Amino acid sequence: MQLKRTWTAAVLIIGDEILSGRTQDENVAPIAIWLNEQGIRLVEVRMVADALDVISKAVNELRQSHDYLITTGGIGPTHDDITVDGVAAAFGTVVEIIPEARAILERFFRDVPGGLSEAHLRLARAPTGAEVIQSPTSPAIGFRLDNVLILAGVPRIAASMLKNLSGKLLGGRPLVFVTVSARVRETEVAQLLRDTEEAHPGAVIGSYPFFKQGNHGCNFVIRCEDQDVAEGTGKDLINRLRLEGFDPIEGGS
Amino acid sequence: MQLKRTWTAAVLIIGDEILSGRTQDENVAPIAIWLNEQGIRLVEVRMVADALDVISKAVNELRQSHDYLITTGGIGPTHDDITVDGVAAAFGTVVEIIPEARAILERFFRDVPGGLSEAHLRLARAPTGAEVIQSPTSPAIGFRLDNVLILAGVPRIAASMLKNLSGKLLGGRPLVFVTVSARVRETEVAQLLRDTEEAHPGAVIGSYPFFKQGNHGCNFVIRCEDQDVAEGTGKDLINRLRLEGFDPIEGGS
Repeated sequence: MQLKRTWTAAVLIIGDEILSGRTQDENVAPIAIWLNEQGIRLVEVRMVADALDVISKAVNELRQSHDYLITTGGIGPTHDDITVDGVAAAFGTVVEIIPEARAILERFFRDVPGGLSEAHLRLARAPTGAEVIQSPTSPAIGFRLDNVLILAGVPRIAASMLKNLSGKLLGGRPLVFVTVSARVRETEVAQLLRDTEEAHPGAVIGSYPFFKQGNHGCNFVIRCEDQDVAEGTGKDLINRLRLEGFDPIEGGS
Repeated sequence: MQLKRTWTAAVLIIGDEILSGRTQDENVAPIAIWLNEQGIRLVEVRMVADALDVISKAVNELRQSHDYLITTGGIGPTHDDITVDGVAAAFGTVVEIIPEARAILERFFRDVPGGLSEAHLRLARAPTGAEVIQSPTSPAIGFRLDNVLILAGVPRIAASMLKNLSGKLLGGRPLVFVTVSARVRETEVAQLLRDTEEAHPGAVIGSYPFFKQGNHGCNFVIRCEDQDVAEGTGKDLINRLRLEGFDPIEGGS
């Protein structure tokens, strides 16, 4: 019998523009959702600057402690795009023009005035042995080296690269989410939530207050690997809230 | 003569809802901008789950390698809010009800029906020796312990806590940003950007392509501690772009 195991991933967001506050990251949430669909848990995110030693140190720490590492950013054609160099340094290998990537660029720029330039060719640079991850909508090219997936920083392009990877990674069971919401303040139900979670081993309940249209409310998000346990916990939580005089609904608010 | 030094900070975003993709983080960018205003560089961000050992490990790594660590999230009244416990574990101390925090809650709930409950009192829990960081708009209470600043996860409340801290941290010079934009593709100016950066020691140029209203363009962001160098680099970049036949403007697009 094979023991169940949980597959984990980390995400490394690379870019000075994120750390200066100029750009709001929009990659973490969609990558997290996509990973869960593949049966892989996102357990850590790091954001670092466009600095070679910082990137390679983070890549090594994260690829060694998780099943997968996804990086975003720093794969464009300019001098500040050094992600592939950082990954190569982490693996102790060198960067070269990957023939498959070069072929993609040659096709892409065949009919473009000026053709394929030296600067464009930088997009084909990757650590020796890397495989190509294509984007259907852009000449940007992602790469996979061992358990490291190197994606673009532009969210639309990163998402198209992920789509090409769907179903191709090893994973386990996705987490199931059941959301219950009620017009209630967290403090009124803190003990109730704790009791409910304790009554359902395997289920974890998160509590997220909101304030909408003049009303305080909370979303309670139940996370569990087992669909039946998740749904049972949701029903039990609704019952317990009703017994206390609240009017919960299934679903988020 | 005192040597100039760069003050650095890390941010630790705590919450299962971030790693599941349910919630899009909105704290990193405003914290980054606020830190720069204080003369402190944000150099690393981590996002971790609501798990005690994970939080305490990250707190210890980040508080020891940076001048400041700012955490967000996990300071509410429910069972899944364990940030203060994680920080206490990192410092090898215990969590207690902080008298100043209790007094704030007693004032806040003096005229609220039901008064101050056990659940509310959880908001006053912090590691021994922590100082209060107040929010003017909410009973949520942040804390400072040594170089660790513990803020709320709700962006509006986190921002109000930061406002209370403005001017109170030690820092150096803020980075100055000068942005130049042009309707140009990155690949056309990759070498020009590299040459410009090399001609202006101390200045770093980031290149951020965009696609708007059917046109390709780039924002070039110059970052530098010295205002004169930043502006000089911007003027030089504009001149170099003009010499190549482009029509750059100062400011972002």
